[in-house]
Amino acid sequence: MTPPPNRRYRRAMATVYGMRPSGNCWKVTQILRLTGQPFRWVEVDTNGGETRTPGFLRRNPFGKVPVLELDDGTVLVESNAILAHVAEGTPWLPPPGLPRTRVMEWLFFEQYSHEPYIAVARNIRTYLGTAAANAERLANCDAAGAKALDAMEHRLASHDWLTDAGPTIADLALFAYTHVADEGGFDLARWPGVAAWVARVAALPGIVTLPRRAAA
Amino acid sequence: MTPPPNRRYRRAMATVYGMRPSGNCWKVTQILRLTGQPFRWVEVDTNGGETRTPGFLRRNPFGKVPVLELDDGTVLVESNAILAHVAEGTPWLPPPGLPRTRVMEWLFFEQYSHEPYIAVARNIRTYLGTAAANAERLANCDAAGAKALDAMEHRLASHDWLTDAGPTIADLALFAYTHVADEGGFDLARWPGVAAWVARVAALPGIVTLPRRAAA
Repeated sequence: MTPPPNRRYRRAMATVYGMRPSGNCWKVTQILRLTGQPFRWVEVDTNGGETRTPGFLRRNPFGKVPVLELDDGTVLVESNAILAHVAEGTPWLPPPGLPRTRVMEWLFFEQYSHEPYIAVARNIRTYLGTAAANAERLANCDAAGAKALDAMEHRLASHDWLTDAGPTIADLALFAYTHVADEGGFDLARWPGVAAWVARVAALPGIVTLPRRAAA
Repeated sequence: MTPPPNRRYRRAMATVYGMRPSGNCWKVTQILRLTGQPFRWVEVDTNGGETRTPGFLRRNPFGKVPVLELDDGTVLVESNAILAHVAEGTPWLPPPGLPRTRVMEWLFFEQYSHEPYIAVARNIRTYLGTAAANAERLANCDAAGAKALDAMEHRLASHDWLTDAGPTIADLALFAYTHVADEGGFDLARWPGVAAWVARVAALPGIVTLPRRAAA
């Protein structure tokens, strides 16, 4: 039976504004799923300029996705800040102290030393298809992305998770673009500890991997 | 009188490994000063390759400064993770919840959308002196850096601090490279709210600004 259009039946729900193939947007839906919070998805075409419309900029003056609008209207931005906010009080984020700081180190590493190279290489090679016109930029992405994977390998060659607290949002944040790094031209066979960790994260209950771009 | 070489007189102390002109390294010494924690400084010549020596890489496999070594030997990396760790439990970092999340949004914004342009432009123009050879890269820094300052102006045109929690590590993190943005070619007269905020942060008790490069 269809419920009547009555407010009692309208469940309070968060809204995620994002782009489906984006690893940063994936982080938000993934932590909401893992913590059992229902959400609506609104697709925003970043490449088509939809993050620059007045309506969108009212929500996020930074003009970027993802944006998480909570059911009380609070608007959150920056994917890793959203991860920490939603994970607060759950095993995905240890309480304040050294274990949390270890998570934060990886979150900042991800945004500064990993995403700008591995996600950008994927976007150019697989989504924009403009590799030829971006040879110099891609060479930089390849070198810096390999360095980022080296740093992960340094840890993951001998540990199951990025920190000693078990699987946390540090693993989710790094998994976002690492599990599709081959779409950026990175062959994880070079980083066996990272490859094993990718399989380990993917096998956690409730993990939904990113859709892969169909071969042209 | 010189104290005798006795352990009773050796005060437990943290060690900061860093480069003097670096805004990221400045963050670490600044929060230690503000929270009353004594520290030793070890100058590391990044451009000279000192972050790539085996000894340094044992401390930080990421091969970057700043590194904070606590008096118990714990090694922390990533400037904004260090800020949060040292500020924990002080008014510089609100407790978990929305006020802390607002701080985290700015910390990630700083590392992703601000530092890679404003700090890099300063390094090229003022420290490396290689502007002519980096015209395209600088043009990108100028455009993206201006966008970052626009986002700050959006907030600071009508507020004293970046978040509603009063001065926090969000203000310290953004102050680091904004107060020397002119060395990167950014004239803060274009962003009057940001300029007023820079003066406001600089006037807080205990703030020590970065040394300025003497004119050649």
